[in-house]
Amino acid sequence: MATATLLACDWGTTNLRAWTLADDGEVVASRDFPFGVARLAAGEAPARFAQVRKALGAREFPAMLCGMVGSNLGWTLAPYVDCPTGFPEIAAGLVDVGDRVRIVPGVRAAGFNGQGDVMRGEETQLFGWLAAEPARAVGRRLICHPGTHAKWMAVDDGRLTAFVTAMTGELFGLLTAHGVLKTDAPADDMAAFDEGVAAAGEGDALAARLFTARARVVGKGKPAESTASYLSGLLIGADVAATSRLLDAGERDPVVLLGDVGLCGLYARALAARGVACEIHDGEAAVRAGLLALWKAVA
Amino acid sequence: MATATLLACDWGTTNLRAWTLADDGEVVASRDFPFGVARLAAGEAPARFAQVRKALGAREFPAMLCGMVGSNLGWTLAPYVDCPTGFPEIAAGLVDVGDRVRIVPGVRAAGFNGQGDVMRGEETQLFGWLAAEPARAVGRRLICHPGTHAKWMAVDDGRLTAFVTAMTGELFGLLTAHGVLKTDAPADDMAAFDEGVAAAGEGDALAARLFTARARVVGKGKPAESTASYLSGLLIGADVAATSRLLDAGERDPVVLLGDVGLCGLYARALAARGVACEIHDGEAAVRAGLLALWKAVA
Repeated sequence: MATATLLACDWGTTNLRAWTLADDGEVVASRDFPFGVARLAAGEAPARFAQVRKALGAREFPAMLCGMVGSNLGWTLAPYVDCPTGFPEIAAGLVDVGDRVRIVPGVRAAGFNGQGDVMRGEETQLFGWLAAEPARAVGRRLICHPGTHAKWMAVDDGRLTAFVTAMTGELFGLLTAHGVLKTDAPADDMAAFDEGVAAAGEGDALAARLFTARARVVGKGKPAESTASYLSGLLIGADVAATSRLLDAGERDPVVLLGDVGLCGLYARALAARGVACEIHDGEAAVRAGLLALWKAVA
Repeated sequence: MATATLLACDWGTTNLRAWTLADDGEVVASRDFPFGVARLAAGEAPARFAQVRKALGAREFPAMLCGMVGSNLGWTLAPYVDCPTGFPEIAAGLVDVGDRVRIVPGVRAAGFNGQGDVMRGEETQLFGWLAAEPARAVGRRLICHPGTHAKWMAVDDGRLTAFVTAMTGELFGLLTAHGVLKTDAPADDMAAFDEGVAAAGEGDALAARLFTARARVVGKGKPAESTASYLSGLLIGADVAATSRLLDAGERDPVVLLGDVGLCGLYARALAARGVACEIHDGEAAVRAGLLALWKAVA
Protein backbone atom coordinates (compact mmCIF):
# COMPACT_ATOMS: atom_id res chain seq x y z
CA MET A 1 0.00 0.00 0.00
CA ALA A 2 1.21 3.47 -0.95
CA THR A 3 2.22 5.98 1.72
CA ALA A 4 0.10 9.10 1.91
CA THR A 5 1.97 12.38 1.74
CA LEU A 6 -0.73 15.00 1.02
CA LEU A 7 -4.16 15.83 2.40
CA ALA A 8 -6.22 17.10 -0.58
CA CYS A 9 -9.65 18.69 -0.07
CA ASP A 10 -12.43 19.96 -2.31
CA TRP A 11 -14.28 22.15 0.19
CA GLY A 12 -17.45 23.44 -1.39
CA THR A 13 -20.64 25.17 -0.39
CA THR A 14 -22.44 22.11 0.98
CA ASN A 15 -19.77 19.44 1.50
CA LEU A 16 -16.10 18.81 2.04
CA ARG A 17 -14.50 15.88 0.24
CA ALA A 18 -11.08 14.87 1.53
CA TRP A 19 -8.44 12.44 0.26
CA THR A 20 -5.05 11.44 1.45
CA LEU A 21 -2.83 10.97 -1.59
CA ALA A 22 0.45 9.21 -2.24
CA ASP A 23 3.16 11.02 -4.14
CA ASP A 24 2.01 9.42 -7.43
CA GLY A 25 -1.62 10.50 -6.84
CA GLU A 26 -2.90 7.18 -5.59
CA VAL A 27 -5.81 7.59 -3.16
CA VAL A 28 -4.86 6.11 0.23
CA ALA A 29 -8.05 7.13 2.05
CA SER A 30 -11.04 9.37 1.40
CA ARG A 31 -13.98 10.72 3.31
CA ASP A 32 -16.87 13.19 2.93
CA PHE A 33 -17.87 15.67 5.62
CA PRO A 34 -21.20 17.52 5.77
CA PHE A 35 -19.73 20.92 6.68
CA GLY A 36 -19.65 22.95 3.49
CA VAL A 37 -18.81 26.62 3.92
CA ALA A 38 -22.49 27.61 3.88
CA ARG A 39 -22.82 25.73 7.19
CA LEU A 40 -19.77 27.23 8.90
CA ALA A 41 -19.95 29.89 11.58
CA ALA A 42 -17.46 32.73 11.19
CA GLY A 43 -13.98 31.52 12.15
CA GLU A 44 -15.07 27.90 12.45
CA ALA A 45 -13.06 26.55 9.48
CA PRO A 46 -9.75 25.77 11.29
CA ALA A 47 -11.49 23.73 14.01
CA ARG A 48 -13.52 21.82 11.43
CA PHE A 49 -10.38 21.16 9.44
CA ALA A 50 -8.70 19.72 12.55
CA GLN A 51 -11.52 17.15 12.58
CA VAL A 52 -10.72 16.27 8.95
CA ARG A 53 -7.03 15.84 9.76
CA LYS A 54 -7.87 13.59 12.69
CA ALA A 55 -10.45 11.48 10.85
CA LEU A 56 -8.02 10.78 8.00
CA GLY A 57 -4.94 10.28 10.19
CA ALA A 58 -3.36 13.28 8.45
CA ARG A 59 -2.41 15.52 11.38
CA GLU A 60 1.10 16.24 10.08
CA PHE A 61 0.46 16.29 6.31
CA PRO A 62 0.69 19.33 4.13
CA ALA A 63 -2.80 20.15 2.88
CA MET A 64 -4.18 21.69 -0.33
CA LEU A 65 -7.75 23.05 -0.27
CA CYS A 66 -9.80 24.28 -3.23
CA GLY A 67 -13.37 25.52 -3.67
CA MET A 68 -15.55 27.91 -1.72
CA VAL A 69 -13.24 27.54 1.30
CA GLY A 70 -11.34 30.40 -0.37
CA SER A 71 -14.39 32.72 -0.39
CA ASN A 72 -15.43 35.16 2.31
CA LEU A 73 -17.73 32.43 3.67
CA GLY A 74 -14.80 30.03 4.09
CA TRP A 75 -11.45 30.00 5.88
CA THR A 76 -9.93 33.14 4.43
CA LEU A 77 -10.37 35.09 1.23
CA ALA A 78 -8.03 33.78 -1.49
CA PRO A 79 -8.19 36.65 -4.01
CA TYR A 80 -9.31 35.83 -7.56
CA VAL A 81 -6.67 35.44 -10.26
CA ASP A 82 -7.77 37.29 -13.41
CA CYS A 83 -8.41 35.51 -16.69
CA PRO A 84 -6.54 34.77 -18.98
CA THR A 85 -4.49 32.66 -16.64
CA GLY A 86 -2.50 29.46 -16.43
CA PHE A 87 -1.19 26.93 -13.95
CA PRO A 88 1.78 29.12 -12.85
CA GLU A 89 -0.49 32.04 -11.88
CA ILE A 90 -2.78 29.73 -9.91
CA ALA A 91 0.22 28.25 -8.10
CA ALA A 92 1.56 31.76 -7.40
CA GLY A 93 -1.84 32.76 -5.99
CA LEU A 94 -1.99 29.97 -3.37
CA VAL A 95 -2.73 31.40 0.07
CA ASP A 96 -0.78 29.91 2.99
CA VAL A 97 -2.94 29.99 6.13
CA GLY A 98 -0.35 28.31 8.35
CA ASP A 99 -0.19 24.79 9.80
CA ARG A 100 0.95 23.55 6.32
CA VAL A 101 -2.42 24.45 4.77
CA ARG A 102 -2.66 26.20 1.38
CA ILE A 103 -5.84 27.42 -0.31
CA VAL A 104 -6.24 27.62 -4.10
CA PRO A 105 -7.45 30.99 -5.46
CA GLY A 106 -10.54 31.29 -7.68
CA VAL A 107 -10.53 32.84 -11.15
CA ARG A 108 -12.38 35.92 -12.40
CA ALA A 109 -13.25 36.71 -16.03
CA ALA A 110 -14.83 39.59 -17.96
CA GLY A 111 -18.16 37.78 -18.50
CA PHE A 112 -21.22 39.27 -20.21
CA ASN A 113 -21.36 43.05 -20.60
CA GLY A 114 -18.45 43.43 -18.19
CA GLN A 115 -20.54 42.08 -15.30
CA GLY A 116 -17.81 39.58 -14.62
CA ASP A 117 -17.80 35.86 -14.00
CA VAL A 118 -16.16 33.82 -11.26
CA MET A 119 -15.17 30.26 -10.36
CA ARG A 120 -13.78 28.54 -7.27
CA GLY A 121 -12.77 24.90 -7.53
CA GLU A 122 -13.27 24.34 -11.25
CA GLU A 123 -9.84 25.89 -11.97
CA THR A 124 -8.23 23.11 -9.92
CA GLN A 125 -10.16 20.47 -11.84
CA LEU A 126 -9.30 22.10 -15.16
CA PHE A 127 -5.57 22.43 -14.53
CA GLY A 128 -5.48 18.96 -13.00
CA TRP A 129 -6.96 17.52 -16.17
CA LEU A 130 -4.57 19.51 -18.35
CA ALA A 131 -1.57 18.45 -16.24
CA ALA A 132 -2.39 14.75 -16.48
CA GLU A 133 -1.19 14.47 -20.11
CA PRO A 134 1.23 16.85 -21.84
CA ALA A 135 -0.73 16.67 -25.11
CA ARG A 136 -3.74 18.32 -23.41
CA ALA A 137 -1.80 21.59 -23.07
CA VAL A 138 -1.67 21.99 -26.86
CA GLY A 139 -4.42 23.41 -29.10
CA ARG A 140 -7.78 25.11 -28.70
CA ARG A 141 -10.18 23.34 -26.36
CA LEU A 142 -13.65 23.87 -24.91
CA ILE A 143 -14.09 22.22 -21.53
CA CYS A 144 -17.43 22.01 -19.74
CA HIS A 145 -18.00 21.20 -16.10
CA PRO A 146 -21.78 20.58 -15.83
CA GLY A 147 -23.56 21.11 -12.54
CA THR A 148 -25.51 23.58 -10.40
CA HIS A 149 -23.48 26.37 -11.99
CA ALA A 150 -22.12 24.86 -15.20
CA LYS A 151 -18.74 26.21 -16.29
CA TRP A 152 -17.79 26.46 -19.96
CA MET A 153 -14.05 27.10 -20.25
CA ALA A 154 -12.05 28.09 -23.34
CA VAL A 155 -8.46 26.87 -23.17
CA ASP A 156 -5.74 27.88 -25.63
CA ASP A 157 -2.45 26.00 -25.40
CA GLY A 158 -3.02 25.17 -21.77
CA ARG A 159 -4.16 28.64 -20.67
CA LEU A 160 -7.69 29.49 -19.56
CA THR A 161 -8.60 32.40 -21.83
CA ALA A 162 -12.33 32.85 -21.10
CA PHE A 163 -15.20 31.18 -19.31
CA VAL A 164 -18.94 31.48 -18.86
CA THR A 165 -21.09 30.14 -16.03
CA ALA A 166 -24.67 28.98 -16.70
CA MET A 167 -27.11 28.43 -13.81
CA THR A 168 -28.47 25.36 -15.57
CA GLY A 169 -28.49 22.94 -12.64
CA GLU A 170 -29.84 25.54 -10.24
CA LEU A 171 -32.74 26.36 -12.58
CA PHE A 172 -33.54 22.64 -12.87
CA GLY A 173 -33.49 22.30 -9.09
CA LEU A 174 -35.65 25.37 -8.44
CA LEU A 175 -38.21 24.57 -11.14
CA THR A 176 -38.67 20.94 -10.11
CA ALA A 177 -38.68 21.62 -6.33
CA HIS A 178 -41.03 24.64 -6.30
CA GLY A 179 -43.58 26.31 -8.54
CA VAL A 180 -45.87 25.12 -11.27
CA LEU A 181 -43.52 22.46 -12.71
CA LYS A 182 -42.83 20.86 -9.30
CA THR A 183 -42.42 17.12 -9.62
CA ASP A 184 -41.19 14.13 -7.65
CA ALA A 185 -40.81 11.91 -10.70
CA PRO A 186 -37.23 11.01 -11.71
CA ALA A 187 -35.62 12.49 -14.84
CA ASP A 188 -35.03 9.13 -16.49
CA ASP A 189 -37.34 9.25 -19.52
CA MET A 190 -34.88 9.63 -22.40
CA ALA A 191 -37.58 10.17 -25.02
CA ALA A 192 -38.88 13.15 -23.04
CA PHE A 193 -35.30 14.35 -22.53
CA ASP A 194 -34.76 14.33 -26.30
CA GLU A 195 -38.07 16.13 -26.79
CA GLY A 196 -36.78 18.82 -24.41
CA VAL A 197 -33.47 19.10 -26.26
CA ALA A 198 -35.37 19.64 -29.51
CA ALA A 199 -37.60 22.26 -27.85
CA ALA A 200 -34.53 24.18 -26.64
CA GLY A 201 -33.89 25.52 -30.14
CA GLU A 202 -30.87 27.81 -30.16
CA GLY A 203 -31.25 28.55 -26.45
CA ASP A 204 -33.04 31.85 -27.03
CA ALA A 205 -36.30 32.86 -25.30
CA LEU A 206 -35.67 30.40 -22.45
CA ALA A 207 -38.40 31.77 -20.14
CA ALA A 208 -40.93 31.11 -22.89
CA ARG A 209 -39.55 27.73 -23.87
CA LEU A 210 -39.75 26.64 -20.21
CA PHE A 211 -43.51 27.16 -20.25
CA THR A 212 -43.78 24.46 -22.92
CA ALA A 213 -43.01 22.02 -20.09
CA ARG A 214 -46.41 22.92 -18.67
CA ALA A 215 -48.28 23.42 -21.94
CA ARG A 216 -47.32 19.98 -23.28
CA VAL A 217 -48.99 18.40 -20.24
CA VAL A 218 -52.14 20.53 -19.84
CA GLY A 219 -52.60 21.35 -23.53
CA LYS A 220 -51.25 18.25 -25.29
CA GLY A 221 -51.91 15.47 -22.78
CA LYS A 222 -48.26 14.43 -22.30
CA PRO A 223 -47.72 12.55 -19.00
CA ALA A 224 -46.84 14.80 -16.05
CA GLU A 225 -44.32 12.15 -14.94
CA SER A 226 -42.15 13.07 -17.94
CA THR A 227 -41.85 16.75 -16.93
CA ALA A 228 -38.50 16.44 -15.09
CA SER A 229 -36.91 14.62 -18.04
CA TYR A 230 -38.31 17.11 -20.55
CA LEU A 231 -37.10 20.02 -18.42
CA SER A 232 -33.65 18.45 -18.06
CA GLY A 233 -33.38 18.14 -21.84
CA LEU A 234 -34.69 21.66 -22.38
CA LEU A 235 -32.27 23.28 -19.92
CA ILE A 236 -29.22 21.25 -20.95
CA GLY A 237 -30.13 21.69 -24.63
CA ALA A 238 -30.42 25.46 -24.16
CA ASP A 239 -27.12 25.55 -22.25
CA VAL A 240 -25.31 23.60 -24.95
CA ALA A 241 -26.84 25.69 -27.75
CA ALA A 242 -26.37 29.13 -26.25
CA THR A 243 -23.41 29.00 -23.90
CA SER A 244 -21.10 26.81 -25.93
CA ARG A 245 -21.60 29.14 -28.92
CA LEU A 246 -20.29 32.08 -26.90
CA LEU A 247 -16.98 30.26 -26.70
CA ASP A 248 -16.85 29.04 -30.33
CA ALA A 249 -17.66 25.40 -29.58
CA GLY A 250 -17.54 24.59 -33.29
CA GLU A 251 -13.88 25.54 -33.46
CA ARG A 252 -13.02 23.56 -30.37
CA ASP A 253 -14.45 20.20 -31.29
CA PRO A 254 -14.43 17.74 -29.50
CA VAL A 255 -15.77 19.31 -26.33
CA VAL A 256 -14.31 17.88 -23.12
CA LEU A 257 -16.93 17.15 -20.43
CA LEU A 258 -15.32 17.06 -17.02
CA GLY A 259 -17.45 16.22 -13.97
CA ASP A 260 -20.01 13.72 -12.74
CA VAL A 261 -20.04 11.01 -15.37
CA GLY A 262 -23.84 10.57 -15.38
CA LEU A 263 -24.51 14.26 -15.82
CA CYS A 264 -21.76 14.47 -18.43
CA GLY A 265 -23.62 11.74 -20.31
CA LEU A 266 -26.71 13.96 -20.54
CA TYR A 267 -24.60 16.83 -21.87
CA ALA A 268 -23.00 14.46 -24.37
CA ARG A 269 -26.47 13.47 -25.58
CA ALA A 270 -27.50 17.10 -26.05
CA LEU A 271 -24.21 17.89 -27.83
CA ALA A 272 -24.66 14.88 -30.11
CA ALA A 273 -28.11 16.18 -31.09
CA ARG A 274 -26.28 19.26 -32.41
CA GLY A 275 -23.61 17.18 -34.15
CA VAL A 276 -20.86 18.12 -31.70
CA ALA A 277 -18.48 15.38 -30.59
CA CYS A 278 -17.25 15.17 -27.01
CA GLU A 279 -15.13 13.21 -24.56
CA ILE A 280 -16.12 12.49 -20.94
CA HIS A 281 -13.58 12.59 -18.11
CA ASP A 282 -14.07 12.04 -14.39
CA GLY A 283 -14.08 15.37 -12.58
CA GLU A 284 -13.11 14.07 -9.18
CA ALA A 285 -9.90 12.46 -10.45
CA ALA A 286 -9.08 15.78 -12.12
CA VAL A 287 -9.55 17.74 -8.87
CA ARG A 288 -7.17 15.39 -7.06
CA ALA A 289 -4.64 15.68 -9.89
CA GLY A 290 -4.88 19.47 -9.72
CA LEU A 291 -4.36 19.64 -5.96
CA LEU A 292 -1.38 17.29 -6.20
CA ALA A 293 0.19 19.21 -9.11
CA LEU A 294 -0.22 22.53 -7.29
CA TRP A 295 1.39 21.10 -4.17
CA LYS A 296 4.32 19.75 -6.17
CA ALA A 297 4.74 23.18 -7.76
CA VAL A 298 5.26 24.89 -4.42
CA ALA A 299 6.55 22.15 -2.11
CA MET B 1 -76.04 54.00 -6.59
CA ALA B 2 -76.20 51.58 -9.50
CA THR B 3 -78.04 48.29 -9.19
CA ALA B 4 -75.90 45.18 -9.51
CA THR B 5 -77.01 42.62 -12.08
CA LEU B 6 -73.96 40.33 -12.55
CA LEU B 7 -71.55 38.51 -10.27
CA ALA B 8 -68.17 38.54 -12.07
CA CYS B 9 -65.23 36.46 -10.80
CA ASP B 10 -61.58 36.05 -11.72
CA TRP B 11 -60.92 32.71 -10.01
CA GLY B 12 -57.23 31.93 -10.28
CA THR B 13 -54.70 29.53 -8.82
CA THR B 14 -54.21 31.30 -5.50
CA ASN B 15 -57.12 33.74 -5.13
CA LEU B 16 -60.66 34.51 -6.19
CA ARG B 17 -61.54 38.13 -6.91
CA ALA B 18 -65.28 38.83 -7.14
CA TRP B 19 -67.25 41.92 -8.18
CA THR B 20 -70.93 42.67 -8.48
CA LEU B 21 -71.43 44.81 -11.56
CA ALA B 22 -74.19 47.08 -12.79
CA ASP B 23 -75.38 46.77 -16.35
CA ASP B 24 -73.00 49.56 -17.44
CA GLY B 25 -70.00 47.86 -15.79
CA GLU B 26 -69.93 50.00 -12.67
CA VAL B 27 -68.53 48.11 -9.68
CA VAL B 28 -71.16 47.91 -6.93
CA ALA B 29 -69.15 45.74 -4.55
CA SER B 30 -65.96 43.71 -4.64
CA ARG B 31 -64.15 41.24 -2.46
CA ASP B 32 -61.14 38.89 -2.52
CA PHE B 33 -61.25 35.33 -1.23
CA PRO B 34 -58.20 33.20 -0.39
CA PHE B 35 -59.45 30.02 -2.02
CA GLY B 36 -57.73 29.77 -5.38
CA VAL B 37 -58.18 26.46 -7.20
CA ALA B 38 -54.85 25.13 -5.94
CA ARG B 39 -56.39 25.17 -2.46
CA LEU B 40 -59.66 23.44 -3.37
CA ALA B 41 -60.44 19.84 -2.56
CA ALA B 42 -62.05 17.88 -5.40
CA GLY B 43 -65.69 18.92 -5.79
CA GLU B 44 -65.36 21.79 -3.33
CA ALA B 45 -65.87 24.64 -5.85
CA PRO B 46 -69.70 24.91 -5.73
CA ALA B 47 -69.76 25.15 -1.92
CA ARG B 48 -67.02 27.79 -1.95
CA PHE B 49 -68.87 29.71 -4.60
CA ALA B 50 -72.01 29.71 -2.45
CA GLN B 51 -69.92 31.59 0.15
CA VAL B 52 -68.98 34.16 -2.50
CA ARG B 53 -72.62 34.63 -3.47
CA LYS B 54 -73.60 35.08 0.15
CA ALA B 55 -70.75 37.47 1.04
CA LEU B 56 -71.59 39.73 -1.89
CA GLY B 57 -75.37 39.53 -1.53
CA ALA B 58 -75.51 37.97 -4.99
CA ARG B 59 -77.45 34.76 -4.35
CA GLU B 60 -79.73 35.19 -7.33
CA PHE B 61 -77.39 36.86 -9.83
CA PRO B 62 -76.15 35.30 -13.00
CA ALA B 63 -72.40 34.69 -12.63
CA MET B 64 -69.45 34.68 -15.05
CA LEU B 65 -66.21 33.01 -13.94
CA CYS B 66 -62.85 33.06 -15.71
CA GLY B 67 -59.40 31.72 -14.90
CA MET B 68 -58.13 28.42 -13.54
CA VAL B 69 -61.64 27.63 -12.27
CA GLY B 70 -62.11 26.18 -15.78
CA SER B 71 -59.16 23.78 -15.41
CA ASN B 72 -59.23 20.24 -14.08
CA LEU B 73 -58.27 21.66 -10.67
CA GLY B 74 -61.32 23.95 -10.63
CA TRP B 75 -65.09 23.55 -10.91
CA THR B 76 -65.28 21.72 -14.20
CA LEU B 77 -63.11 21.47 -17.28
CA ALA B 78 -63.99 24.18 -19.78
CA PRO B 79 -62.27 22.85 -22.94
CA TYR B 80 -59.69 25.11 -24.62
CA VAL B 81 -60.71 27.09 -27.69
CA ASP B 82 -57.99 26.83 -30.35
CA CYS B 83 -56.08 29.84 -31.62
CA PRO B 84 -56.67 31.82 -33.85
CA THR B 85 -59.87 32.81 -32.13
CA GLY B 86 -62.12 35.78 -31.40
CA PHE B 87 -64.78 36.96 -29.02
CA PRO B 88 -67.61 34.93 -30.68
CA GLU B 89 -65.74 31.63 -30.25
CA ILE B 90 -65.01 32.40 -26.60
CA ALA B 91 -68.68 33.22 -26.03
CA ALA B 92 -69.70 30.02 -27.80
CA GLY B 93 -67.31 28.04 -25.59
CA LEU B 94 -68.82 29.20 -22.27
CA VAL B 95 -69.65 26.24 -20.06
CA ASP B 96 -72.94 26.40 -18.15
CA VAL B 97 -72.56 24.56 -14.82
CA GLY B 98 -76.10 25.32 -13.63
CA ASP B 99 -77.38 27.71 -10.99
CA ARG B 100 -76.87 30.62 -13.47
CA VAL B 101 -73.08 30.10 -13.45
CA ARG B 102 -71.03 30.15 -16.66
CA ILE B 103 -67.28 29.46 -16.95
CA VAL B 104 -65.08 31.03 -19.64
CA PRO B 105 -62.96 28.58 -21.67
CA GLY B 106 -59.17 28.96 -21.95
CA VAL B 107 -57.30 29.23 -25.25
CA ARG B 108 -54.69 26.91 -26.72
CA ALA B 109 -52.05 27.83 -29.34
CA ALA B 110 -49.36 26.03 -31.35
CA GLY B 111 -46.46 27.40 -29.27
CA PHE B 112 -42.81 26.50 -29.75
CA ASN B 113 -41.99 23.37 -31.74
CA GLY B 114 -45.62 22.29 -31.58
CA GLN B 115 -45.41 21.81 -27.81
CA GLY B 116 -48.42 24.03 -27.45
CA ASP B 117 -49.21 26.99 -25.25
CA VAL B 118 -52.23 27.70 -23.07
CA MET B 119 -53.99 30.50 -21.20
CA ARG B 120 -56.92 30.73 -18.78
CA GLY B 121 -58.14 34.15 -17.73
CA GLU B 122 -55.98 36.35 -19.96
CA GLU B 123 -58.40 35.79 -22.88
CA THR B 124 -61.16 37.45 -20.84
CA GLN B 125 -58.91 40.41 -20.07
CA LEU B 126 -57.82 40.68 -23.70
CA PHE B 127 -61.31 40.58 -25.19
CA GLY B 128 -62.58 42.91 -22.47
CA TRP B 129 -59.93 45.45 -23.42
CA LEU B 130 -60.69 45.06 -27.11
CA ALA B 131 -64.46 45.40 -26.53
CA ALA B 132 -64.12 48.63 -24.56
CA GLU B 133 -63.42 50.74 -27.68
CA PRO B 134 -64.35 49.80 -31.25
CA ALA B 135 -61.08 51.24 -32.62
CA ARG B 136 -59.10 48.63 -30.70
CA ALA B 137 -60.50 45.87 -32.91
CA VAL B 138 -58.72 47.31 -35.96
CA GLY B 139 -55.07 46.77 -36.93
CA ARG B 140 -52.12 44.64 -35.83
CA ARG B 141 -51.43 44.76 -32.10
CA LEU B 142 -49.08 43.16 -29.60
CA ILE B 143 -50.56 42.94 -26.12
CA CYS B 144 -48.57 41.82 -23.10
CA HIS B 145 -49.97 40.73 -19.76
CA PRO B 146 -46.92 40.64 -17.44
CA GLY B 147 -46.91 38.37 -14.39
CA THR B 148 -45.94 34.95 -13.05
CA HIS B 149 -46.56 33.54 -16.51
CA ALA B 150 -46.36 36.57 -18.83
CA LYS B 151 -48.57 36.34 -21.91
CA TRP B 152 -47.56 38.00 -25.19
CA MET B 153 -50.57 38.08 -27.51
CA ALA B 154 -50.65 38.95 -31.22
CA VAL B 155 -54.01 40.41 -32.26
CA ASP B 156 -55.03 41.06 -35.86
CA ASP B 157 -58.23 43.03 -36.40
CA GLY B 158 -59.61 41.96 -33.06
CA ARG B 159 -58.71 38.27 -33.34
CA LEU B 160 -56.08 36.53 -31.20
CA THR B 161 -53.81 34.95 -33.82
CA ALA B 162 -50.88 33.73 -31.71
CA PHE B 163 -49.50 33.93 -28.19
CA VAL B 164 -46.44 32.96 -26.19
CA THR B 165 -46.14 32.48 -22.42
CA ALA B 166 -42.89 33.34 -20.64
CA MET B 167 -42.26 32.13 -17.06
CA THR B 168 -40.63 35.45 -16.24
CA GLY B 169 -42.37 36.18 -12.94
CA GLU B 170 -42.04 32.60 -11.76
CA LEU B 171 -38.28 32.61 -12.44
CA PHE B 172 -37.94 35.87 -10.50
CA GLY B 173 -39.87 34.38 -7.59
CA LEU B 174 -37.92 31.11 -7.53
CA LEU B 175 -34.50 32.74 -7.87
CA THR B 176 -35.08 35.35 -5.15
CA ALA B 177 -36.83 32.97 -2.71
CA HIS B 178 -34.43 30.02 -2.98
CA GLY B 179 -30.91 29.27 -4.16
CA VAL B 180 -27.75 31.30 -4.49
CA LEU B 181 -29.43 34.62 -5.43
CA LYS B 182 -31.90 34.48 -2.51
CA THR B 183 -32.60 37.97 -1.18
CA ASP B 184 -35.02 39.79 1.08
CA ALA B 185 -34.16 43.23 -0.30
CA PRO B 186 -36.87 44.95 -2.34
CA ALA B 187 -36.54 45.37 -6.12
CA ASP B 188 -36.68 49.16 -6.02
CA ASP B 189 -33.20 50.17 -7.19
CA MET B 190 -33.86 51.52 -10.68
CA ALA B 191 -30.18 51.94 -11.55
CA ALA B 192 -29.63 48.22 -10.86
CA PHE B 193 -32.82 47.41 -12.81
CA ASP B 194 -31.45 49.29 -15.83
CA GLU B 195 -28.10 47.51 -15.42
CA GLY B 196 -30.03 44.21 -15.57
CA VAL B 197 -31.95 45.29 -18.67
CA ALA B 198 -28.64 46.10 -20.40
CA ALA B 199 -27.18 42.74 -19.32
CA ALA B 200 -30.17 40.91 -20.85
CA GLY B 201 -28.82 41.47 -24.37
CA GLU B 202 -31.12 39.88 -26.92
CA GLY B 203 -32.51 37.43 -24.37
CA ASP B 204 -30.23 34.61 -25.48
CA ALA B 205 -28.14 32.48 -23.10
CA LEU B 206 -30.40 33.35 -20.16
CA ALA B 207 -28.99 30.70 -17.78
CA ALA B 208 -25.54 32.25 -18.26
CA ARG B 209 -26.73 35.86 -18.04
CA LEU B 210 -28.48 35.02 -14.76
CA PHE B 211 -25.16 34.11 -13.19
CA THR B 212 -23.96 37.68 -13.74
CA ALA B 213 -26.34 38.58 -10.87
CA ARG B 214 -23.97 36.67 -8.62
CA ALA B 215 -20.70 37.52 -10.33
CA ARG B 216 -21.33 41.28 -10.16
CA VAL B 217 -21.58 40.98 -6.37
CA VAL B 218 -18.78 38.52 -5.56
CA GLY B 219 -16.46 39.50 -8.42
CA LYS B 220 -17.19 43.20 -8.91
CA GLY B 221 -18.20 44.34 -5.43
CA LYS B 222 -21.72 45.52 -6.35
CA PRO B 223 -24.05 45.65 -3.30
CA ALA B 224 -25.95 42.42 -2.62
CA GLU B 225 -29.02 44.55 -1.80
CA SER B 226 -29.30 45.45 -5.49
CA THR B 227 -29.57 41.81 -6.64
CA ALA B 228 -33.39 41.66 -6.77
CA SER B 229 -33.58 44.85 -8.86
CA TYR B 230 -30.82 43.68 -11.20
CA LEU B 231 -32.51 40.31 -11.59
CA SER B 232 -35.87 41.96 -12.27
CA GLY B 233 -34.30 44.06 -15.03
CA LEU B 234 -32.45 41.07 -16.47
CA LEU B 235 -35.52 38.81 -16.59
CA ILE B 236 -37.92 41.48 -17.88
CA GLY B 237 -35.28 42.72 -20.33
CA ALA B 238 -34.76 39.18 -21.64
CA ASP B 239 -38.53 38.63 -21.87
CA VAL B 240 -39.02 41.85 -23.83
CA ALA B 241 -36.07 41.15 -26.13
CA ALA B 242 -36.74 37.50 -26.89
CA THR B 243 -40.46 36.89 -26.55
CA SER B 244 -41.75 40.07 -28.14
CA ARG B 245 -39.55 39.40 -31.19
CA LEU B 246 -41.27 36.05 -31.72
CA LEU B 247 -44.48 37.99 -32.34
CA ASP B 248 -42.97 40.80 -34.46
CA ALA B 249 -43.13 43.52 -31.81
CA GLY B 250 -41.52 45.98 -34.21
CA GLU B 251 -44.46 45.71 -36.57
CA ARG B 252 -46.99 46.09 -33.79
CA ASP B 253 -45.76 49.28 -32.18
CA PRO B 254 -46.97 50.56 -29.71
CA VAL B 255 -47.15 47.52 -27.46
CA VAL B 256 -50.16 47.44 -25.12
CA LEU B 257 -49.30 46.46 -21.54
CA LEU B 258 -52.35 45.12 -19.77
CA GLY B 259 -52.14 44.16 -16.11
CA ASP B 260 -50.86 45.39 -12.77
CA VAL B 261 -49.90 48.99 -13.39
CA GLY B 262 -46.68 48.89 -11.35
CA LEU B 263 -45.40 45.77 -13.09
CA CYS B 264 -46.48 47.19 -16.47
CA GLY B 265 -44.30 50.22 -15.64
CA LEU B 266 -41.23 47.98 -15.35
CA TYR B 267 -42.02 46.38 -18.72
CA ALA B 268 -42.50 49.85 -20.20
CA ARG B 269 -39.05 50.81 -18.92
CA ALA B 270 -37.46 47.73 -20.50
CA LEU B 271 -39.32 48.33 -23.78
CA ALA B 272 -38.22 51.97 -23.80
CA ALA B 273 -34.59 50.83 -23.47
CA ARG B 274 -35.12 49.02 -26.79
CA GLY B 275 -36.84 52.03 -28.37
CA VAL B 276 -40.29 50.40 -28.36
CA ALA B 277 -43.26 52.59 -27.42
CA CYS B 278 -46.09 51.25 -25.29
CA GLU B 279 -49.38 52.09 -23.57
CA ILE B 280 -50.37 50.86 -20.11
CA HIS B 281 -53.92 49.79 -19.29
CA ASP B 282 -55.37 48.44 -16.05
CA GLY B 283 -55.80 44.68 -16.30
CA GLU B 284 -58.47 44.33 -13.65
CA ALA B 285 -60.84 46.76 -15.38
CA ALA B 286 -60.30 44.78 -18.57
CA VAL B 287 -61.21 41.46 -16.89
CA ARG B 288 -64.46 42.97 -15.60
CA ALA B 289 -65.25 44.39 -19.03
CA GLY B 290 -64.61 40.98 -20.58
CA LEU B 291 -66.85 39.12 -18.15
CA LEU B 292 -69.63 41.67 -18.66
CA ALA B 293 -69.34 41.58 -22.46
CA LEU B 294 -69.43 37.78 -22.50
CA TRP B 295 -72.50 37.75 -20.30
CA LYS B 296 -74.27 40.26 -22.54
CA ALA B 297 -73.40 38.11 -25.54
CA VAL B 298 -75.27 35.09 -24.15
CA ALA B 299 -77.84 36.55 -21.75
